[in-house]
Amino acid sequence: MNPILFTRGVPPQESIPIEKLSICAREVISEHGVDVLQYAPSPGYLPLREYLSERKELTAERVLLGQGSLQILDMLIHCLLQPGDVVAVEQPTYDRVLTLMRRADLCIFPIDLRPDGLDLDQLETALVGGLKLRLMYVIADFQNPSGALMPLNQRQRLVSLSQQYRFQIVEDAPYRTLRYNGEDLPSIFDLSPATVIQLSSFSKLISPGLRVGYAVLPENLHSILSKYAEDTYINPSYLNQAIVLRFIQKGWFEGHITFLKDLYSHRLQMMLNALQSHLDRICAWTKPEGGFFVGLWLGNGRTLAEVWERSEAAGIRLTDGRGFFERGGESFIRLPFCALDEQDIHQGIQRLAALLDS
Amino acid sequence: MNPILFTRGVPPQESIPIEKLSICAREVISEHGVDVLQYAPSPGYLPLREYLSERKELTAERVLLGQGSLQILDMLIHCLLQPGDVVAVEQPTYDRVLTLMRRADLCIFPIDLRPDGLDLDQLETALVGGLKLRLMYVIADFQNPSGALMPLNQRQRLVSLSQQYRFQIVEDAPYRTLRYNGEDLPSIFDLSPATVIQLSSFSKLISPGLRVGYAVLPENLHSILSKYAEDTYINPSYLNQAIVLRFIQKGWFEGHITFLKDLYSHRLQMMLNALQSHLDRICAWTKPEGGFFVGLWLGNGRTLAEVWERSEAAGIRLTDGRGFFERGGESFIRLPFCALDEQDIHQGIQRLAALLDS
Repeated sequence: MNPILFTRGVPPQESIPIEKLSICAREVISEHGVDVLQYAPSPGYLPLREYLSERKELTAERVLLGQGSLQILDMLIHCLLQPGDVVAVEQPTYDRVLTLMRRADLCIFPIDLRPDGLDLDQLETALVGGLKLRLMYVIADFQNPSGALMPLNQRQRLVSLSQQYRFQIVEDAPYRTLRYNGEDLPSIFDLSPATVIQLSSFSKLISPGLRVGYAVLPENLHSILSKYAEDTYINPSYLNQAIVLRFIQKGWFEGHITFLKDLYSHRLQMMLNALQSHLDRICAWTKPEGGFFVGLWLGNGRTLAEVWERSEAAGIRLTDGRGFFERGGESFIRLPFCALDEQDIHQGIQRLAALLDS
Repeated sequence: MNPILFTRGVPPQESIPIEKLSICAREVISEHGVDVLQYAPSPGYLPLREYLSERKELTAERVLLGQGSLQILDMLIHCLLQPGDVVAVEQPTYDRVLTLMRRADLCIFPIDLRPDGLDLDQLETALVGGLKLRLMYVIADFQNPSGALMPLNQRQRLVSLSQQYRFQIVEDAPYRTLRYNGEDLPSIFDLSPATVIQLSSFSKLISPGLRVGYAVLPENLHSILSKYAEDTYINPSYLNQAIVLRFIQKGWFEGHITFLKDLYSHRLQMMLNALQSHLDRICAWTKPEGGFFVGLWLGNGRTLAEVWERSEAAGIRLTDGRGFFERGGESFIRLPFCALDEQDIHQGIQRLAALLDS
């Protein structure tokens, strides 16, 4: 029995517009030539920076393009923080960010995120008690790994805490565009565009392999980050950034997003239906309105360790939830649904239920 | 009078094979699709790693591809060194490397490089005297900024010092392929392939903007660097790496190198002729057999500062030599010749001579 993979949260192969990107690549090299093949300024391909900034009614000087948003976060950590500085994260959060923070010897303050929301009281109590928080990393829309959506009042409260206690908010928004139902909330960045740093990328919207991520930065940080980027890698590949812009300029982006939403929303619905059918009253889970993931918490004090060794034989492969936690996570399972077809989702959840039942 | 630019050492626009790269880009996306557009392992595109390793009779497990070689050096610094560790460099050396080392709070031990060679006695005396050297960064072939070629006996002596005193050699070899006359010497890597780290890239051979650099690493370091790279940026863009390989596989690389050598060797010869005609007995300079640069030392205790303010009016723009030095450099001028046509080279050196004479 081939295991059904509830592991990495990558876009499915069928989501990548290969032939269109091939056309874009050929065109941008032929038409722009040296502009995309020579050394260039570190903040990235200006026309794409302009496109992104205009949509936010900002100047292009606020946008820094990089080779994926993770590396921009790493540079931010190097530029803004010292070893021992305190940074807050939702718990669970994106595992690679925990790795970066630990590598930089930061002190991680985890804030519990449950299916019913983020425990901001926990944060405020600590701040009132004297916690010297420097930065909070947060994924407000369709969080990785939980799929959670932060309600508007929590976004507002977080911004107001950041202003009162003077910590930097870094909002990572790679899934924000992928909303399958309901209405957009203002991003945390939208609530305070002069102070919040927003990261995002085209990895989930066009292609991960192009490595086109970006940050929208407060003015004073843009030059600091640009200098750090130049010192690190001179400049990111403009070719890849120009391919992304060409894809947009040809009018292919909106249709592609519609295609992705249609593909993924059915998979999400199948996942939620299967969970309801098979795991109701045994587990708790989020009910995402977008993104790549449903977060599942085992009930009754059960842990993944109890079934871990039998999971392959049961026909599923799971990710150890502890990777998304600074402390704990033994009962958490991330369920990515985008790269599985509907039959695999249904069967996979059935197998998970059988495994938990055995 | 437009100034003639003796400033940045970038390949000239006419050296970049735009139309051929456009074909390669389209082909690799169409044919390899998801393989170059999806998330992927951090060491880089395996077929290009195999091509590079086979030429050195190594396994592909020794090769790490990155987004330019500078960033690989930055990762090496983070993986191998601590603040305060001592690193040696030729003086002058590549300015961006000094920046990276200072950023990492390393203690830089500069070894004087003059037109008559590198002063390895200086290094050995310090090592005998107890210097705890951790790493030496060296460009043995057509050095940036001096154009110097390290003789074979110095390469051998450096390797033997590194073994006796247990420091890591990092050899940067981006110009090695661009030899315009004379015979190849063994690289430092060739003399000790199990221990020396060699960096190189396709920036000077195909296109800087593709950002395809690489390291050949000792076995034990490859997994450490790969993990660091994955934690930093997940993976480099395989698209760019596949474009480079396709360019090679189509048989275009060798002809392109011949074209570059022909273009640059005439420019180098013009530079050396002009220096001989106009600055003999006033300055000393290297006589490079390849690469991008001639290094010029002003004679008679003169410094660039004396003429700096008048250089634009004299019709030339120069780089402040101190950027290539940990200490000193007031009398050093880097003269890049690849991106200037023969007339500009001749006229530029004439103007420099007039400036120094004024």
